[in-house]
Amino acid sequence: MEHTLPHTISLLSRTPAALDALLRDLPEAWTLRDEGENSWSAFDVVGHLIHGERTDWIPRARIILQFGETKAFEPFDRWAQERESQGKSLGQLLDEFARLRSENLGELHALNLRQEDLERRGRHPALGPVTLSQLLATWATHDLTHIHQISRIMAHQYRKAVGPWSAYLGVLQCAGHSAP
Amino acid sequence: MEHTLPHTISLLSRTPAALDALLRDLPEAWTLRDEGENSWSAFDVVGHLIHGERTDWIPRARIILQFGETKAFEPFDRWAQERESQGKSLGQLLDEFARLRSENLGELHALNLRQEDLERRGRHPALGPVTLSQLLATWATHDLTHIHQISRIMAHQYRKAVGPWSAYLGVLQCAGHSAP
Repeated sequence: MEHTLPHTISLLSRTPAALDALLRDLPEAWTLRDEGENSWSAFDVVGHLIHGERTDWIPRARIILQFGETKAFEPFDRWAQERESQGKSLGQLLDEFARLRSENLGELHALNLRQEDLERRGRHPALGPVTLSQLLATWATHDLTHIHQISRIMAHQYRKAVGPWSAYLGVLQCAGHSAP
Repeated sequence: MEHTLPHTISLLSRTPAALDALLRDLPEAWTLRDEGENSWSAFDVVGHLIHGERTDWIPRARIILQFGETKAFEPFDRWAQERESQGKSLGQLLDEFARLRSENLGELHALNLRQEDLERRGRHPALGPVTLSQLLATWATHDLTHIHQISRIMAHQYRKAVGPWSAYLGVLQCAGHSAP
């Protein structure tokens, strides 16, 4: 389907509560374990989503609106959460994600974007020209890629426990294409 | 990690609220679209989870406890929701799923399972011998496989909208191994 701002906002506004309902107060055996070397836990993913709220989506939208293609976005640091999540609990991260997402949706609303704004172009440091519409659609789809990843990380912890049923559980066949 | 009843219950008890937070009142463009022929929408998946609550997990646990390996489980109808969800709204399905899950967790609690019960064996019509522990671990992992699937189904709707970012979004590379 085509990107529309209301569809994007409807998803973006739900992700914090969905992750909260899934993860808050869940035993750490689910939330702190990863899929092996160089992979993330659910805790790490929430930290990554927070870093995106701080440095990626709205800041990049502002760069497109202000500079167009003349200024490339700052590259995104995909390991920032290792530093930024230190000493925090998952509950604190879920609170922080919800607060930042809410603030960013407020900023998005305040930008008062019209259709012609959505077609404006910016420059991604690796991908080249992209539109504001594509950036906003990616914001929502990025949430989904990490819900997809979290469900896979947690399922991995029961890989042996399910015994022969592993053959029927699609999530256990997933090769981890949404790993960092 | 090993299967433990508290870990399994902690996940099973959170799934209805997580799906509710993600899906309730979301535009139908997200919830009623599928991934193409012979695939499911998020609406279909919630119907499938409901059918599992009615016919799969607790009924199979009872068969193991009562008959052991002498009686195979009834095969599971993976298309039952086509019939059973007809005429219902997604909101109704989410309510029904939450209610049935809560009832089934009550039944699970009432079974008062001990470690030796978890090691009891039953017979799956296709997979052969399975333990009660494996059945319960699969119940939780089955939730995760369908959260994984729903995030993929919804991301698919923005496959074109994200433009060149599709290369970076793992969920868009997922081949659909958790499709029905």
